[in-house]
Amino acid sequence: MRIALDAMGGDNAPGEIIAGALDALDHIKDDQLVLVGDESTIRGHLGDQSRWQSQISIVHAPEAVAMDDPPVEAMRRKRKSSIAVMTELAADGKVDAVVSAGNTGAFVAACQMRMRLLPGVARPGILVVFPTFAGPVALCDVGANIAPKPNHLHQYALMAIAYVTQVLQQTHSTVGLISVGQENAKGNELVRATNQLLRDDKRIDFVGNVEPCDFLKRPADIIICDGFVGNVILKLTEGLAEGLFKTIKREIARSKPDMVEYFKPVVDNLYAKHDYSEYGGAPLLGVDGTCIICHGSSNARAIKSALVSTTKQMRFDINRKITEQLQSGSLGKIGNSIG
Amino acid sequence: MRIALDAMGGDNAPGEIIAGALDALDHIKDDQLVLVGDESTIRGHLGDQSRWQSQISIVHAPEAVAMDDPPVEAMRRKRKSSIAVMTELAADGKVDAVVSAGNTGAFVAACQMRMRLLPGVARPGILVVFPTFAGPVALCDVGANIAPKPNHLHQYALMAIAYVTQVLQQTHSTVGLISVGQENAKGNELVRATNQLLRDDKRIDFVGNVEPCDFLKRPADIIICDGFVGNVILKLTEGLAEGLFKTIKREIARSKPDMVEYFKPVVDNLYAKHDYSEYGGAPLLGVDGTCIICHGSSNARAIKSALVSTTKQMRFDINRKITEQLQSGSLGKIGNSIG
Repeated sequence: MRIALDAMGGDNAPGEIIAGALDALDHIKDDQLVLVGDESTIRGHLGDQSRWQSQISIVHAPEAVAMDDPPVEAMRRKRKSSIAVMTELAADGKVDAVVSAGNTGAFVAACQMRMRLLPGVARPGILVVFPTFAGPVALCDVGANIAPKPNHLHQYALMAIAYVTQVLQQTHSTVGLISVGQENAKGNELVRATNQLLRDDKRIDFVGNVEPCDFLKRPADIIICDGFVGNVILKLTEGLAEGLFKTIKREIARSKPDMVEYFKPVVDNLYAKHDYSEYGGAPLLGVDGTCIICHGSSNARAIKSALVSTTKQMRFDINRKITEQLQSGSLGKIGNSIG
Repeated sequence: MRIALDAMGGDNAPGEIIAGALDALDHIKDDQLVLVGDESTIRGHLGDQSRWQSQISIVHAPEAVAMDDPPVEAMRRKRKSSIAVMTELAADGKVDAVVSAGNTGAFVAACQMRMRLLPGVARPGILVVFPTFAGPVALCDVGANIAPKPNHLHQYALMAIAYVTQVLQQTHSTVGLISVGQENAKGNELVRATNQLLRDDKRIDFVGNVEPCDFLKRPADIIICDGFVGNVILKLTEGLAEGLFKTIKREIARSKPDMVEYFKPVVDNLYAKHDYSEYGGAPLLGVDGTCIICHGSSNARAIKSALVSTTKQMRFDINRKITEQLQSGSLGKIGNSIG
């Protein structure tokens, strides 16, 4: 497999990105990496060529999308950016997967504009496998589509089922929908209409609406929400976990200074369990290809995890499963109306 | 002041609600409580009449709205519910404030339908004073209005400024808007239009969009968001804090069992700082009267805090300030266009 990695994308690019690529090599021996970005910068960070030349090649891209560039405008203006060049390589069949820790909006827009969507997919969605107190839960969408229609959310449920079945190897998976109350009638217009679509689809084992206070108790294998809300959930959890761990450390240092050394490994161990850098990247589901979105503040370890998990995901042939799942829709509906 | 308390509303009603009312008496000696609900049930829980008769009276309401009743339908069908009777007492000027831990949607609907809105207010909004790592932040709306228009969010900012100025005694307050990115162009249609309104209003010191990961760092005194998103923030934080504290306790018990007794007070102290029951109720801003919404799972301590803070809030005359603030709008705009 050939994986293109955006060497210029992310808060810690290019140093940590390229370090992560080098760290990954031993773990993805059968795969090739294509680093996309400013060639001389990349060469400078890669160092000794004998270490990487059998697995890494470089494709020059003279421009880079900044983290705060407006996505669609950046894609229009920066035609030679690493993100644009990378998604073109994928569209031309020159790489099998694209991975970026850069501007998420621009990356999603580029994947959607330059690579094609799978047959029947209306909008791609970002799925994050979220570490909760009761095990991993798949949350979709966390920011690809911040103005979705009910049928988009319905498709996210079907695509997420395909993903969970293939990648997490669950033979059966339940689906919940984020709302402000458990009852079917609770929520805004989008949520109420989506609730109806999910209830009506016999292919989906829908547990109903899920309140955010229960989200971390893992009330279903898959949780669906609009991209704005999903992004809020993702970022708030991140900020709260980080803040709480810091506060706990500070509180111990203040009230039990002699205990700091005892307690540090406990907190560190817990924090690691909730640390995104252990969890690889998030797939953009619905695109005809493999697109993996990394956290903007990814360090080398996060990039390495993402590359390793990308190769795993590619072997699962998720896109075939998604296509089958979506195509079974019309059959499913005919089946339902006959039966 | 006369405060009506919904004796039948909340997960722990009527026991904890009535216990909270009794506990509050010593702290609100100049005020009268009106307990609304099933009279014989209330009398049974109140016990010895000599303890409460100088401060508590009872108004009988034979029906109760269940926590999962559809709000508007409940208000139409259960005309003799404690919530309906209570808001009628307020509309008739027989009480000065209404407090409920019951069905939030029904309580908001009842306040909106039976009491009037302040002049110029388009929709009421729930404001929560949120304990963050860097001090309290006012978050509005957390669930009164889950399908708001940009001008509703704009008004929430103005009403929250009035609240923070009067109740938290801040002479100046900054306002932020929840979005998925800091740049003005980031967010859905509602957020982008609201961002523009807030930037254009010279009365508002707008710090711009706030990402949820920064929310708990207190990037502004006031944070505005739509009621669906605000409810997600409120409930997710609650669930996450609770889950993390439990996990930390379990982790200590597992890896350092001899340390449990040392760390228990540290964790408990931290948890208390983030415990809603210390923080009184949340005001429903924009209604012509004082409406205080308590957490559905309020215990006696939470009800006591809410009643004490209700009397404080009433003395601050927030509604006059809100009316002034909103009425200064047209003047402000004329001023701007002249200047």
